[in-house]
Amino acid sequence: MSRPSSTKTALSGAANAPVESSASVASMAERARVASRAVARLSAEARDRVLLAAAEAIENGAQRILDANARDCRAGEDLVAAGKITSAMLARLRVTERGIAQMARQVREVASLPDPLGKRLSATELDEGLVLVKESCPLGVVGVIFESRPDVVPQLASLGLKSGNAVIVKGGSEAAATTEALVAIWRDAVGKFPDVPADSITLLQTRADVLDLLAQDQNVDLIVPRGSYELVQYVMRNSRIPVLGHGEGICHVYIDRAANLEKAVAISYDAKVQYPAVCNSAETLLVHEGVAREFLPKIVAKLKEAGVEIRGCAKTLALLPDQGIIAATEEDWRTEYSALILSIKVVANLEEAIGHINRYGSHHTDAIVTEDAEAAAKFLNEVDSAGVFQNASTRFADGFRYGFGAEVGISNGKLHARGPMGLEGLTTYKYKLYGSGQVVADYVSGKKQFTHRPLQ
Amino acid sequence: MSRPSSTKTALSGAANAPVESSASVASMAERARVASRAVARLSAEARDRVLLAAAEAIENGAQRILDANARDCRAGEDLVAAGKITSAMLARLRVTERGIAQMARQVREVASLPDPLGKRLSATELDEGLVLVKESCPLGVVGVIFESRPDVVPQLASLGLKSGNAVIVKGGSEAAATTEALVAIWRDAVGKFPDVPADSITLLQTRADVLDLLAQDQNVDLIVPRGSYELVQYVMRNSRIPVLGHGEGICHVYIDRAANLEKAVAISYDAKVQYPAVCNSAETLLVHEGVAREFLPKIVAKLKEAGVEIRGCAKTLALLPDQGIIAATEEDWRTEYSALILSIKVVANLEEAIGHINRYGSHHTDAIVTEDAEAAAKFLNEVDSAGVFQNASTRFADGFRYGFGAEVGISNGKLHARGPMGLEGLTTYKYKLYGSGQVVADYVSGKKQFTHRPLQ
Repeated sequence: MSRPSSTKTALSGAANAPVESSASVASMAERARVASRAVARLSAEARDRVLLAAAEAIENGAQRILDANARDCRAGEDLVAAGKITSAMLARLRVTERGIAQMARQVREVASLPDPLGKRLSATELDEGLVLVKESCPLGVVGVIFESRPDVVPQLASLGLKSGNAVIVKGGSEAAATTEALVAIWRDAVGKFPDVPADSITLLQTRADVLDLLAQDQNVDLIVPRGSYELVQYVMRNSRIPVLGHGEGICHVYIDRAANLEKAVAISYDAKVQYPAVCNSAETLLVHEGVAREFLPKIVAKLKEAGVEIRGCAKTLALLPDQGIIAATEEDWRTEYSALILSIKVVANLEEAIGHINRYGSHHTDAIVTEDAEAAAKFLNEVDSAGVFQNASTRFADGFRYGFGAEVGISNGKLHARGPMGLEGLTTYKYKLYGSGQVVADYVSGKKQFTHRPLQ
Repeated sequence: MSRPSSTKTALSGAANAPVESSASVASMAERARVASRAVARLSAEARDRVLLAAAEAIENGAQRILDANARDCRAGEDLVAAGKITSAMLARLRVTERGIAQMARQVREVASLPDPLGKRLSATELDEGLVLVKESCPLGVVGVIFESRPDVVPQLASLGLKSGNAVIVKGGSEAAATTEALVAIWRDAVGKFPDVPADSITLLQTRADVLDLLAQDQNVDLIVPRGSYELVQYVMRNSRIPVLGHGEGICHVYIDRAANLEKAVAISYDAKVQYPAVCNSAETLLVHEGVAREFLPKIVAKLKEAGVEIRGCAKTLALLPDQGIIAATEEDWRTEYSALILSIKVVANLEEAIGHINRYGSHHTDAIVTEDAEAAAKFLNEVDSAGVFQNASTRFADGFRYGFGAEVGISNGKLHARGPMGLEGLTTYKYKLYGSGQVVADYVSGKKQFTHRPLQ
């Protein structure tokens, strides 16, 4: 959890430029902490009312958003011409009127979700008149660092507010004007409510600010990086604050001996081709040797039509000679292509498939295609991943598709939140103990005994 | 999450002594990973059967444990004589026959708890024939580093096995022989079951091993340090693995204007005096100015009888002149005394008390004494701590007292587990998605729509 000492020095307070910047991020984080306490005090009704007002403000601010986005896109075209960003990145940057309507709709969807706060997670009578209640509550201040895709702003803002947290966001520099317009509209809208501080959302401006943010462990409770492998690694290496994110998405589809091959073809194709640039697309196809001879020609023909490059194990090559399949190396099993490339391995059995996934995968999402309930149960129990699917594409691993309304990010870690993080991932819990004067001395002496009776 | 580069080098594989040691810890961690997968596959009945056998083995091994402990205690007496450990530490080291019976009883208690695995935490129909189930599962491999108190071993071993995890433990060097005997007895007992690998518990021997353990992020999922502030800080600074623990226990008792003063005296006294060396004892007493004049003389007289040193704010000193109360400094509000010392501050109102606790506390456990339900609700909601108590001593913050059977440790962090960590803190969850061939392309094209219907 340590970070470069140069940054620690910058935080200590001497009078030069980086200090100025870090002091301002520190004070932003402090204001976010104060704002988080105010937001946490709001009733569920008040939070939903503010969300509906923010959704309306987004619709009313459409022209401002479109103007800002036009500036970003013009600059983006220059960046594409200069070869600094790809045209795919430019496409993701563009916001349309329909996109703005969609943003407002998502905010209203989040407002309509059940309140994640104050949920009684358990209750136990420890003794007569001594009741322990475990209750959900907000995390506090959450920092999210993302790249491109300005529509992430209303998603984060709405999930944050709904769960009683303050958020600090930093978007990609290509989308700076759009992001700024969205945050400004949100702050104006929520700031009109006397109990709701505008600082419940704060926008960071520069890359240097990110490094400063990562040091605010007193006032920031969680950092979520959303973006490239490099971004996530950078954040994890430099943060003193707990980080949830996914470094990689090496997802697998395993075609079992008892697979329905029609489903197998459809799922493998969707998992690879439907959107290859994202983390929940598949990188490796594992095929039981009992069905490889029948299945491989079908899927490979279909994948090649879609322009997918295939890298196969020796058995794959032997089954499909002279088809331009490249021999896969050890490195292929560890590679997130994020492109129209797929590695294929023929395995002897279910155990080998599970072993391969647990060894080479990234614990993100892995699917088995099988009609054998026992094989599915074994796969779903023993594959050590956030998402384990039977007869469905890995592409379903997503907060919206899971029914969370939106997502803050996806976590490959096992602690706190695993998989797509929605409102629940933005909460923690506290233990409330309601007594009537009890002291521990009486239980240590044996004068009193615990009952430990579960309550509803 | 980075660690000293010297250690990284030591891990990379050249042939000298530290490499040897780190290689062996790495291979221990790998074996623990393999063992964790075997333990995770056991049914609840199998895990409980093994626990009952282990409890019996502890009873049968009593003489071996006592002999080992006698060696530790003889060495400990020399350490006390040499001024290296305190006699209180020696006392905590000593194991009696009654203590061994108690260890076995705790293991049986853990066996009798409900199974924490395979719990359906939520279920949603995403669409017809596409069901998402969120289900609890083991974390994997958990490392626990503790000081003295060898009775921690069967607690950790039983909580670990019950929750389907493998554990790697490192005890204090003063208790080396006792710890080794306990781990050996446990490994023998569980190893008699063909499906249960002895490596489901591993004992680390040296301090150097700890540093090596903290680098095994591929095979260890969580580290829990239990012990001094220095130990916890050392682990947090040097770990690449997520760490849950409590750096400090600066707990408060706040006596509200509407307090029953009899309860206030009893709770304040218990929270400070009953066991001052532990993290859930109180360090600061906050007193509403409306009751200070009546309450302070009572509690101070009682505390002074017990030999408690008092450090008071200006108002406390003014109310109780000439009583040998030391003037508290800013530093006192931030200090965990872990001794018979208490700081006292008179506050103007509830808000000031909450502000003081959130500013100076360690987010461990804080109590309000009041008969005013509204004041209590505000305190319990707004104090940002793992435990927030009304009319009960802070000393109740403990896994056994909370009904968890035992505890792995106590977390002051907000992520994953907060407060005393029992079986639930040793689990995570995965999303199981049961489909019938669904692909994402159909939902993106609009051919199909999600239903997102909550299921039981």
